[in-house]
This record gives sequence, C-alpha cells and structure tokens, in this order.
Amino acid sequence: MQELKERIRREGKVLPGNIVKVDGFLNHRIDCKLMEHIADTFAERFDLSKVDLILTAEASGIALAAICACRWGLPMVFAKKAKSDNIEGGLYQSDIYSYTYKKKVTLIASKDWIRPENHVLILDDFMARGEAVRGLCEMVEQSGAELVGVGIAVEKGFQGGGDRLRAMNVNYHALAVIETAGENGITFRDDA
Amino acid sequence: MQELKERIRREGKVLPGNIVKVDGFLNHRIDCKLMEHIADTFAERFDLSKVDLILTAEASGIALAAICACRWGLPMVFAKKAKSDNIEGGLYQSDIYSYTYKKKVTLIASKDWIRPENHVLILDDFMARGEAVRGLCEMVEQSGAELVGVGIAVEKGFQGGGDRLRAMNVNYHALAVIETAGENGITFRDDA
Repeated sequence: MQELKERIRREGKVLPGNIVKVDGFLNHRIDCKLMEHIADTFAERFDLSKVDLILTAEASGIALAAICACRWGLPMVFAKKAKSDNIEGGLYQSDIYSYTYKKKVTLIASKDWIRPENHVLILDDFMARGEAVRGLCEMVEQSGAELVGVGIAVEKGFQGGGDRLRAMNVNYHALAVIETAGENGITFRDDA
Repeated sequence: MQELKERIRREGKVLPGNIVKVDGFLNHRIDCKLMEHIADTFAERFDLSKVDLILTAEASGIALAAICACRWGLPMVFAKKAKSDNIEGGLYQSDIYSYTYKKKVTLIASKDWIRPENHVLILDDFMARGEAVRGLCEMVEQSGAELVGVGIAVEKGFQGGGDRLRAMNVNYHALAVIETAGENGITFRDDA
C-alpha cells in the first residue's frame, strides 16, 4: 500500500534495536483518514462477505480494528491482557511473549464473544515476531470458529512473524513489509 | 441516551462490588453501530467545530474514541500506560490509581502529539471514580492546550468521578449515568 509506505518512509523513526516508531499516525496518535484508507485496502485483499467478526489484541490494534469494523458494519472483539478482575470465567486464553515489555503476557477473550459459528478476520497494526497474532490464532482455534485471514498494517519482515504465517498457508496480507530498518533509513519488500 | 441505557439495562450484568459489566457491546466486544450512535449523540452535546484533537486512555477507551474521531474527521491520541521502552523522552505524565487493577498506573503521552495550540475533547467509554479522566485532564493542562470538554459513554454516578467534574464546571457530558447497580438491577439518573 503506497500511501502507508510513504508515511512510514517520511515520518517513521528508527530507534536502537531496529525499533520502527510510527506513533505519529498508527499507534499513539491515530490518523483516522489513513486508517480508513487501510480499511479500504484490506477490503480489496480479503473477501469480507465471508467475515462476521474482527478480532484484535489490546492496546494498539484496537483503533485500527475498530475503524475497520465500523467501516465494514461488523462487530469487533479485542483480546485483553490478563490483569483485571472484571473478567470472570468462560475465557479463551493464550500465553504469548511480549518482546516490547520483555515478559510473558496472557491474552484472554470471553467465550461469549467468539463462537464456533463465527468467521474471524484477525487485524493488528504492527507485527514483528508475531506473538500477538499467534495468540489470537490460538484463541480462534480454541473457539472452533473459522479463521478467514490475518491482516497487518505494518510487518517487520526481518523478524519472522509474517513469514511463519505465509509458510502455514494462512490467508495473510500485510500492507507494508519493512525489509530493513537502520541508520540508512527504511526499505520495503517489493511485494507488499 | 435512550438506546445506550436500554442496552445496559438489557445486557449489562452487575457483579459483586457494584461492578457493571457491559463487555458485550462497549469494552470487550464492540458494537460498532452503537458506537456510531454514541458518536452522533456526543456531536449534539459538544461543539465539535471547536475541537481539533480527541484524547483517550488505553485500553478500553480506544475503540470509542477512534470511531468518534473517524466519524468527525479528527485525529485521536491515546495515552499509554507506562511500561514500554518504545516511548523515549518528551512525555506528559500523570500518575493515577487504577481501581480495576488495584495499583498505581502512570499515563504517558508524547509532547509531539498534544500541542499548546490544540483544542482537546477527552472521551472515554466508562467512568467510575474518574482517575483516568483526571490523568488525561492533567496532561492537557501540562501541554497548555485548551480542554474543550469531557465525554463519557457510561458513568457510574455513585462513585463520584462525574460529580467532581460537574463541580469543577468542566464541559462534561455522560450519556448514561448509572445511579444504582445491585441485585435488583440497574437504575439511571433521569437527567442523562
């Protein structure tokens, strides 16, 4: 997606440790117009007539997933990071490792809101090693629902999460795949 | 807002400790159609021509704020709970107490994305004692921006957060104010 790549190239910052910071439009300040264009691009890549539920993980995926779900007239569920006592029993759970926070995190989602008859599209703003998406896929599997696909706005291609999904033949699309991020700036994979 | 009160009455659950669970449409599964109606109702209560930035706090406020911001063509910023090393210097900070998680939480937002010239509307899905909103107001004050107002979808009226804002003459609107929540169900303040 050309518009997204141009924004990353123009406004993205590379921090030590190959961290790509896109917090001016994607995951701290949200550029809603760009989010709508991302939603429209996902709609070209996925057959939304087969989707009846959008699933993401807190926190930074929520804005994109909510805007997409609204634009498509679908409900959205976000998996929570376990810590609250507001969520009682009846949960899907998946343990993932958060490289951002350097610790294990348990994703949880209520069994009330992902049902065996659902057809789920997983969306997230960013993927590096793909732990959050792995956890979300696991919860869809636990529920017995159908996984229609996985859509990611920005993939860090050199950290393996996207390639693992491609190797598993998941219906996977990333709209900008960063190939290198360093002192010389950011380059993208051609095919994204 | 009648539609919201009816949903809470019909689908809300009261848990021990006066916890009102509305996770089927507001803060775990997101009913996008309802969110759009909430956005339209906020648009009647606030003069959006005076607003150029929507501010909320992670995590559960993000969906509502993103959908409102999109519908109004405005950018949105969500304050993060400090824990990531992805956010370097240049931050507004506010310490709040999270009754949900029973611990102190530091809200942070980048100085890049809330500027002295901004006119900020704070939105959140839920307010009880109002700690998150207090933190968000504090960050707006730190920034030198103008606080145009505070909009909350569901206020737990008996926990004081909303009344404190009313006493401070903040331009505050809650769309459903829960007066009592117990074994006999949920009642609302008339004026909301």
